[in-house]
Amino acid sequence: MYPKSLENLIESFKTLPGIGAKTAERLAFALLELDEEQINVFSDSMIEAKNKIHRCSKCNMMTDEELCFVCNDIGRKDSKVLCVVEDPKNVFLFEKLDMFRGKYHVLEGLISPLDGINPEDIGLDKLLDRIKEDKFEEIIFAFKPSIEGETTALYIKKILEGLDIKITKLASGVPIGADMEYVDSLTLERALSDRKVIE
Amino acid sequence: MYPKSLENLIESFKTLPGIGAKTAERLAFALLELDEEQINVFSDSMIEAKNKIHRCSKCNMMTDEELCFVCNDIGRKDSKVLCVVEDPKNVFLFEKLDMFRGKYHVLEGLISPLDGINPEDIGLDKLLDRIKEDKFEEIIFAFKPSIEGETTALYIKKILEGLDIKITKLASGVPIGADMEYVDSLTLERALSDRKVIE
Repeated sequence: MYPKSLENLIESFKTLPGIGAKTAERLAFALLELDEEQINVFSDSMIEAKNKIHRCSKCNMMTDEELCFVCNDIGRKDSKVLCVVEDPKNVFLFEKLDMFRGKYHVLEGLISPLDGINPEDIGLDKLLDRIKEDKFEEIIFAFKPSIEGETTALYIKKILEGLDIKITKLASGVPIGADMEYVDSLTLERALSDRKVIE
Repeated sequence: MYPKSLENLIESFKTLPGIGAKTAERLAFALLELDEEQINVFSDSMIEAKNKIHRCSKCNMMTDEELCFVCNDIGRKDSKVLCVVEDPKNVFLFEKLDMFRGKYHVLEGLISPLDGINPEDIGLDKLLDRIKEDKFEEIIFAFKPSIEGETTALYIKKILEGLDIKITKLASGVPIGADMEYVDSLTLERALSDRKVIE
């Protein structure tokens, strides 16, 4: 029913995760309303982003330069705190908070033997070399609270045993503003066992 | 904070209506996960759709051929019923119902003097020429229920006065499945005044 070229455009939108048939149609129609210049810019920006963006040679963060904007930040040059994340997107999340002034290291995922992802698959060598070389004093694991996150954190902690490095992870618990009745039982259990003394 | 080329890609997604900053970021990150081949196809499909899709020379519907798929449909060649819509997307909506086997004509919008859209701006000449030439027996106005829709329908009806053509419009009323309490008062008024005898 749709003209072939429109059909192709809809199919392309559907390759994006989370975009179903209805949304793909809506976006394709909306795109056709843009003028030719805007569409050329859009089309070029896709190709260019894919071509230019690669991993930072130091921390694996997304960048289109040799080093990412954090590794290039002179103000953080002497920081001895390293936040380890599982995905480059999480660096942007933390940076938006504008609260953490340390460095980051992006792993290539989390250890998950069930999915066939073993310790040697997530780029640990690069992380460990960097930790030793740059003499970090604290490593913060900022993984999602999950079996994979716990496994990866414990695995790295074990390797670092004997080094004089403080090893921490993000607090888990009840999200601020959440209705208690909607908090899942695992989170509630964790919030209870990790309860804090009110000072 | 974002690499420039990623920033540009996000900006491009934001040019699509209904795509805010958060969604644009999500889509841009998702796009980068696609492989290069998929992104090339996506990028080309945008340019190609914009270049190839134009209006059907007969009915103004979107097409990438001379005539649209409805005007090309031999099964409808002799239909004397014409459904007039305000937007090519509406033709796809009706065709998905697979219920109407007549022809369509797509106006270039609806009359809306407040927005500076006058009768001569919506391509009425082409419609009127077609109605006379093809000797339609029924014209169905399938405009959205609104002042602009009513105005446009009445305006065309007046021009067609004297011709032996049945002129109809879509029924308005309570949507099937709607909770009565969520139906707005204008719709309810219309549903009441247009009430039907139960046979």
